[in-house]
Amino acid sequence: MGGEAASAGMGVTELFQLLRDGVPRTRAQLAKSTGLARSTIAVRVDELMRMGLVTPVAEAASTGGRPPSQFALNPGARVVVAADIGASHATVAITDLGATILAERTEPLDITLGPVPVLTWTLETALALLAEAGRPARDIAAIGIGVPGPVEFSTGRPVNPPIMPGWDRFDIPGWVRQHLDAPVLVDNDVNIMALGERATAWPGTEHLMFVKIATGIGAGVISGGQLLRGAQGVAGDIGHVRVARGSDVPCSCGNRGCLEALASGPAIARELRGQGVDAQNGNDVVDLVKHGNIDAIQAVRQAGRDIGEVLTACVSLMNPSVIAIGGSMARVGEHLIAGVREVVYTRSTPLATEHLSIVQSSAAENAGVSGASMLAIEHALSPAALHMLVTA
Amino acid sequence: MGGEAASAGMGVTELFQLLRDGVPRTRAQLAKSTGLARSTIAVRVDELMRMGLVTPVAEAASTGGRPPSQFALNPGARVVVAADIGASHATVAITDLGATILAERTEPLDITLGPVPVLTWTLETALALLAEAGRPARDIAAIGIGVPGPVEFSTGRPVNPPIMPGWDRFDIPGWVRQHLDAPVLVDNDVNIMALGERATAWPGTEHLMFVKIATGIGAGVISGGQLLRGAQGVAGDIGHVRVARGSDVPCSCGNRGCLEALASGPAIARELRGQGVDAQNGNDVVDLVKHGNIDAIQAVRQAGRDIGEVLTACVSLMNPSVIAIGGSMARVGEHLIAGVREVVYTRSTPLATEHLSIVQSSAAENAGVSGASMLAIEHALSPAALHMLVTA
Repeated sequence: MGGEAASAGMGVTELFQLLRDGVPRTRAQLAKSTGLARSTIAVRVDELMRMGLVTPVAEAASTGGRPPSQFALNPGARVVVAADIGASHATVAITDLGATILAERTEPLDITLGPVPVLTWTLETALALLAEAGRPARDIAAIGIGVPGPVEFSTGRPVNPPIMPGWDRFDIPGWVRQHLDAPVLVDNDVNIMALGERATAWPGTEHLMFVKIATGIGAGVISGGQLLRGAQGVAGDIGHVRVARGSDVPCSCGNRGCLEALASGPAIARELRGQGVDAQNGNDVVDLVKHGNIDAIQAVRQAGRDIGEVLTACVSLMNPSVIAIGGSMARVGEHLIAGVREVVYTRSTPLATEHLSIVQSSAAENAGVSGASMLAIEHALSPAALHMLVTA
Repeated sequence: MGGEAASAGMGVTELFQLLRDGVPRTRAQLAKSTGLARSTIAVRVDELMRMGLVTPVAEAASTGGRPPSQFALNPGARVVVAADIGASHATVAITDLGATILAERTEPLDITLGPVPVLTWTLETALALLAEAGRPARDIAAIGIGVPGPVEFSTGRPVNPPIMPGWDRFDIPGWVRQHLDAPVLVDNDVNIMALGERATAWPGTEHLMFVKIATGIGAGVISGGQLLRGAQGVAGDIGHVRVARGSDVPCSCGNRGCLEALASGPAIARELRGQGVDAQNGNDVVDLVKHGNIDAIQAVRQAGRDIGEVLTACVSLMNPSVIAIGGSMARVGEHLIAGVREVVYTRSTPLATEHLSIVQSSAAENAGVSGASMLAIEHALSPAALHMLVTA
């Protein structure tokens, strides 16, 4: 067919989508994979190198003096800001495009202070960390932010977030962009934990559920490689599904028998107090289990069964290959997961559980900030973002 | 930037992805949307017209004599074969690229005959219908097939299908392509029903669950615009989730208290027989309800509540905007759906149900074949398929 080139830089994005995995490739390999002519490849690779996004890679058996013949993503070309804002703490990090953390800080921060104080702290911390990493603000390719509530992902606005007073419909990207000129991606904290867990421990896994068990209970679901957000951004909100055991236990949502009212950290502590055991909160429960307290171990195991009851429905619906259990209560270790496994493997269909792993989160406390970084990197390296860079 | 064209037909697929929605556009509109030069647009539109995929569209206020200035997809350019193979019946149709049915046939067909007899009938019927529609076999752009069991979508092979003896790992696409040279897409029947329901009644909806209630109970889930298939192709298999009411009712799967053992057509009939009502199967239940039998109405309403109990977990996990209830038992009408709504709206969080519609399937018996057609059309109009056409 042939004919002249259609638009500026055509072929650059295709080429870069290949190279972004970091695997070094020769010009010949790139020509073969893209169908582009060798002469075009040479021009396009030069463009990407000029932008700093691609770098020559020395061959293992280089004879020296020869021109570089393999190329790969240059992870240091740009950086991203990753922020994991929780109910009472926040973590901010600067990472490169390979998700390596260059600088990081965690501090107590009360989400109920409202958006402006919380985002001001986040922004100031990001700028301080940038300076620490020796990078100018113009190097920021994107900003990823996780918040503890439902988010309309397309606009980055929280929607009716129950524990974030003052944040409803607040334009987080708009506010941040008044101060930093970079794309801003905002998502629910458990969603970004799912991204972080996959990046950390299960790269390439297309069907993963991350379950956060802490003061509340929620899940982030990756299916077919995509994070599921749902029509109102509340997909994964499994804390208020009813479990059989607890039909009379009242929940803060106004219903009775919700999973969160039975198996969250505060719920287990309350149950233990009812048995005369001194446990004020989830941390106390974790300490008791670590010291071998039988009542606490049994309560945690039962909480695992309750969680398993709800996850059985999730397994039937989603057919994931991995369920990772995280959040502060996951620190109790195997007793909780044993309860989950007991019910899921008993109750689910064999086909859905044959290759299902139910494991403790590997990313643990870093899942959130790692996922926020992934969210930003995915955007920064997307064809659309690169197209803007090329035509800028 | 500029430089010579990179690969054959570059820009054609981009252009076609715009035009495939059937909305007429001018060359100027196409240039604006794609960023391609006007001169390139002219060449590319001519190519698509030469392939027959795009056709000039007369303007409403045309002055006559002027060259055509608007273009759109030509739905009659090619056809697809759509087959919905159920447990005891099969429907085959020929549709155009706009999913309009050109010829259709439904006949009793026993899936347990095994793959070769069933697929032979399907193929012969497709060829007869093609002749009826006056189209040659070379016009077939793709073939979509739904079967009543789990399918590994990437290979088109059924995987451990419980009611399809002889079909396990059978290479359906390979067999069909020995006789017809076109891409073959195979999926689970409830998945294609979800596609068909969306195409028929909810175009543009990104989060839809189709629930089939018949001899078995299963769901097809579209989230973020994508059909969810799961790691083993068994996503949506909600029939064996336990419901609270039925902890002692045995199920064919070996467990007790499964949704299917309580709320499927045969299960409701069994329960009615236990009350002395003459109901041998789901069809009898439907007839009884239509004649106003109070016992049958109450049993159906309770089945709806049981289904609602499982759907509550699905709503929390997926946050859909539509749940469509289909399958042969949906013919009982509002009594079943009222039970579903009663539980889902009581038990789910307000945010997840605020904009949730729970409705009877509009596509009804046509959902399967309409979805098989959509599956084939989606593939036929995809960038990859078009690229092959352009470079052929």
